Amino acid sequence: MPRKVYLEDIPLDEARRRFEANLAVQNILEQTGAEAVPIAEALGRVTATPIWAPLSSPHYHGSAMDGAAVRSEDTLGASEATPVRLRLGEQATWVDTGDPLPSTANAVIMIEHIQTIGDEIEIMAPVAPWQHVRSMGEDIVATELVLPAGRVLDPVDLGAAAACGCTEIVVRRRPRVAILPTGSELVSPGTDVKPGDIIEFNSLMLAGQVTQWGGTARRLPVTPDVYPVLKERISRALDEHDVVVVNAGSSAGSEDFTATIVGELGELLVHGVAIRPGHPLILGVARGKPILGIPGYPVSAVLTSELFVRPLLYRMLGVPAPRRPTIQATMTRKVLSPMGEDEYLRVKLGKVGGRIVATPLQRGAGVIMSLVRADGIALIPRLSEGVHAGADVTVELLRPPETIEQTIVAIGSHDLTLDLLSSEVGKLRPGLSLSSSNVGSLGGLIALQRGEAHLAGSHLLDEESGEYNLPYVRRALGDRSVVLVNLVHRDQGLIVAPGNPRGIAGLQDLLRSDVRFVNRQRGAGTRVLLDYQLKQMHTDPSRIEGYRREEFTHLAVAAAIAGGTADVGLGILAAARALGLDFVPILKERYDLVIPRDFYEAELLRPMLDVIRGPDFARQVVALGGYDTSQMGAVVGEL
Amino acid sequence: MPRKVYLEDIPLDEARRRFEANLAVQNILEQTGAEAVPIAEALGRVTATPIWAPLSSPHYHGSAMDGAAVRSEDTLGASEATPVRLRLGEQATWVDTGDPLPSTANAVIMIEHIQTIGDEIEIMAPVAPWQHVRSMGEDIVATELVLPAGRVLDPVDLGAAAACGCTEIVVRRRPRVAILPTGSELVSPGTDVKPGDIIEFNSLMLAGQVTQWGGTARRLPVTPDVYPVLKERISRALDEHDVVVVNAGSSAGSEDFTATIVGELGELLVHGVAIRPGHPLILGVARGKPILGIPGYPVSAVLTSELFVRPLLYRMLGVPAPRRPTIQATMTRKVLSPMGEDEYLRVKLGKVGGRIVATPLQRGAGVIMSLVRADGIALIPRLSEGVHAGADVTVELLRPPETIEQTIVAIGSHDLTLDLLSSEVGKLRPGLSLSSSNVGSLGGLIALQRGEAHLAGSHLLDEESGEYNLPYVRRALGDRSVVLVNLVHRDQGLIVAPGNPRGIAGLQDLLRSDVRFVNRQRGAGTRVLLDYQLKQMHTDPSRIEGYRREEFTHLAVAAAIAGGTADVGLGILAAARALGLDFVPILKERYDLVIPRDFYEAELLRPMLDVIRGPDFARQVVALGGYDTSQMGAVVGEL
Repeated sequence: MPRKVYLEDIPLDEARRRFEANLAVQNILEQTGAEAVPIAEALGRVTATPIWAPLSSPHYHGSAMDGAAVRSEDTLGASEATPVRLRLGEQATWVDTGDPLPSTANAVIMIEHIQTIGDEIEIMAPVAPWQHVRSMGEDIVATELVLPAGRVLDPVDLGAAAACGCTEIVVRRRPRVAILPTGSELVSPGTDVKPGDIIEFNSLMLAGQVTQWGGTARRLPVTPDVYPVLKERISRALDEHDVVVVNAGSSAGSEDFTATIVGELGELLVHGVAIRPGHPLILGVARGKPILGIPGYPVSAVLTSELFVRPLLYRMLGVPAPRRPTIQATMTRKVLSPMGEDEYLRVKLGKVGGRIVATPLQRGAGVIMSLVRADGIALIPRLSEGVHAGADVTVELLRPPETIEQTIVAIGSHDLTLDLLSSEVGKLRPGLSLSSSNVGSLGGLIALQRGEAHLAGSHLLDEESGEYNLPYVRRALGDRSVVLVNLVHRDQGLIVAPGNPRGIAGLQDLLRSDVRFVNRQRGAGTRVLLDYQLKQMHTDPSRIEGYRREEFTHLAVAAAIAGGTADVGLGILAAARALGLDFVPILKERYDLVIPRDFYEAELLRPMLDVIRGPDFARQVVALGGYDTSQMGAVVGEL
Repeated sequence: MPRKVYLEDIPLDEARRRFEANLAVQNILEQTGAEAVPIAEALGRVTATPIWAPLSSPHYHGSAMDGAAVRSEDTLGASEATPVRLRLGEQATWVDTGDPLPSTANAVIMIEHIQTIGDEIEIMAPVAPWQHVRSMGEDIVATELVLPAGRVLDPVDLGAAAACGCTEIVVRRRPRVAILPTGSELVSPGTDVKPGDIIEFNSLMLAGQVTQWGGTARRLPVTPDVYPVLKERISRALDEHDVVVVNAGSSAGSEDFTATIVGELGELLVHGVAIRPGHPLILGVARGKPILGIPGYPVSAVLTSELFVRPLLYRMLGVPAPRRPTIQATMTRKVLSPMGEDEYLRVKLGKVGGRIVATPLQRGAGVIMSLVRADGIALIPRLSEGVHAGADVTVELLRPPETIEQTIVAIGSHDLTLDLLSSEVGKLRPGLSLSSSNVGSLGGLIALQRGEAHLAGSHLLDEESGEYNLPYVRRALGDRSVVLVNLVHRDQGLIVAPGNPRGIAGLQDLLRSDVRFVNRQRGAGTRVLLDYQLKQMHTDPSRIEGYRREEFTHLAVAAAIAGGTADVGLGILAAARALGLDFVPILKERYDLVIPRDFYEAELLRPMLDVIRGPDFARQVVALGGYDTSQMGAVVGEL
């Protein structure tokens, strides 16, 4: 039975050193053998041995032109005044490009310079030896080194190998990596999930990574948290693969058996690395093979695999791991990070007003969308306590550098139509993207003020004038020239469970003791609207149960109601409808894009404005329901 | 029957415009449809539609810790002085990480903070609502945009799609590209070639490129130059594919039918583009599909495919073609290039003494090794006449930028052991390479003088002192501090046909009228040696037939003899043996590596020196034959 295990806090470099030193001693790093594959299947593989040319290319002296093959000596003295005649079949032979030269010939005369007279040809100029001849070995001489060992094979490499007579190439065998998902609660994608089921998708990501890094991934079936079963499966995986990755069970909980099993089957080298996300990581060696216990949270799984599996596979293949390009960016927000841990912060990037800005994404190890949305990763080193807003950071890029300048940065209030807009913009102009961070309407205006965004979605009602957005923009952006473009008018109302079981009819019902409310965060337009209405009603918000529970998007509010943890929230019809909820309309509100004039006029934003003003987009938005597109694309305010 | 066709000289931009405009009008650019594939097979594919989440992730409120699920309200007021007890099964429920929360609970207390007393738990502190709860939709909210259309799928994208309940992803179908090799002289790799046969390897390279660019390549059988057969095959290829690439027959010769057939089946848009290599290029459209005639020389085929097929496939897939990184480099030699043509010059790169130097490779369209050896491509624009030595050029990189600094640049005399050394260095230190350009011994010293190389292979005999290399180095490099490291002593002698049919015994036989000589280029150590010996013999070189025929490597000399175009040449045993030729030894010569001291002491060269001085390398060199390694690695001279 498993003994109790404890998590350590080994610095990343030290963990790497231990792992690599141990693998090197056991000669594991280059253990994958070689195999011969047909050239046509060798693209992207790595040569295991140098390739020395078996044949020359060309393997004979050939004509480089259509014309006649001759001996250069026979043409000496030819001129317009003294043409030279050569007898066909003896002194001259017709050749097309590529034809072999007769052994007596050493030059070719172009057809354009030849007169045929009976069985003779007449020429007006001499030809130098080897002129218009493609000589044997011009490209490759037999026995020459064509490709060194350790070469990642490009299309031209395949061509060169074939040109010199090879039909197969001896390449490094791809390291076979077993990916063993463990956990009694895991179910496969496509299962009709019930509460407590967790869709197992880490193995898909880990297998995709292994494939990208030149290995062969095998996703084994999910193993439940049953100690003897898991031990038997790991043992068998070790027999059949070069590397074993167990995911998860790598922590120190009551059902975390991986560390114990690694120790029993071989040597547990590291358990717990001082990185975030990714702390509960296991590194070991068993039966001469590396075995890794990768944490279960998806972001941790992906990042720890990057840090440890990636270099391992490249070492086994004998090629250096390609480096990702990096850029310098300005951090838009303060990020605190605990001392003692290397933190890998996912960021969105964009070029706003001449500088590259990095906006941190969600930091939770469970939020895989933080990696999907990320343009890059900034390392906050373990001897630092974080990064100040405005500080310079080095960002390792996850996308091609040129895409950063092709990103429209939207920070502000969330609306479903922004998702749709983002997708349409990319369709109209491949490579162009609309990156949208949701921090509420006021947060968006602050981002514009700080020069962190090209535009902000905003639906802020001014309580005094009853006017939308403009008074707030004036306060936030002062004398900056700004254009307000309407995106939609949308229904705001109360989102309730299907059939409205609590019979909620208006804001007064929020005060009922049997009604649990879920709120939006401060600064959100919807929150401003609620507070405005409550004030009109002279209602004390603290009397509303759940007033302090804040969600950051309309959909998160709807999800709370769908999940039964709240009975009502204020939001938009689209969100209610999306989750099959009911909706009690309260009023229509205006949702604008606030765009500083220099960005409004810039080339970057034009395709987005074209999409908004085209007929197709409005049609799609109307289809979502709860939207009025009558002013879509119109300039509704200017400063 | 085919009508006569003529090659035009259309500038690249104009050719691109014509092709793209025509394809756009015919709506061809985005014609490949969509198909649903299982997530596990979607890596690297391109989303055809946006993915909106069918499910939330997590799809229920789950515990983020091992502990007890409770209602936050029940814990108010708990402290060490006033612990609170909660009844298990009513007010508290044991949960493990990932377990769903009972619908009554809204928080989790960590197991470490719980005392169990009978059927109650006791806690010393209150817990806030939603603490240690992983709430429904924390990662993905149902209906949210997970992935936009046009996304190239990464491992994390697959994970996100699976997390929200997808099992398949609708991706763009890969464009199907037919590659149709034509030419009666073409044979498949592996054929026992006879003179006039040309190994068909362009289709391997073109198919590799198409695969790298996201298409599906189908290599069709070789079609002979028979007009009706070719027309029928092209016609059928058009029916079954999205793009047809015909290779070659794209010029204007008597058997070049492609242009005519394109015109007959559809519209011939461009025939002849002002680029080098690659001029005889055909662009057309037939039956709503792009059809390209790609020239037959391998470098032309690869480059024109890059220029026209690559953007086409990326447009069809709806994603921007990734840009290659570029760097600025200093051109080491003057390169003349004709006005009116964009020339794509293949270059080798290295960082020598703080600057990146670019050395042009062979420019012939038939030399595929120029692309295999190339680190990058420099464009010489059509309105320029070339590049001066020392000029700054922009080089598009074919290798990762970091490999440039990991390149040891050797320019000088060629020896087979350099090929072997290059291969061994990469084995010892993956990523490190030895790039060797062969310009003869004197050329190497000049390259050192100009700061273009880290070392030069040299075997220059000083005619006065009888000393090797040092006098030449002193003359060429003046007061620069230099170290001479011996690589080998090697046999120089006369290379003759097997069995020595002319009975050649010594240099005096070169004067015989029945003996054809093949020489090395001026500056080559072997040439210096020959001229020295001839002078000693008071022999007029012009009396030697073939004295003016110059080859640039030992192997090229051997190939000339093996090919029967010469009877004898001066060279090394290894070259003779490699091609199965006979060898008449004349003398032993010293072959050194000339290394400026700052490079000799640099980190970059250390692994190479370690290889030379290791026991394994000498053993391999001896096995080649004709080498004496007794001084290998020894410092044989210093300045």
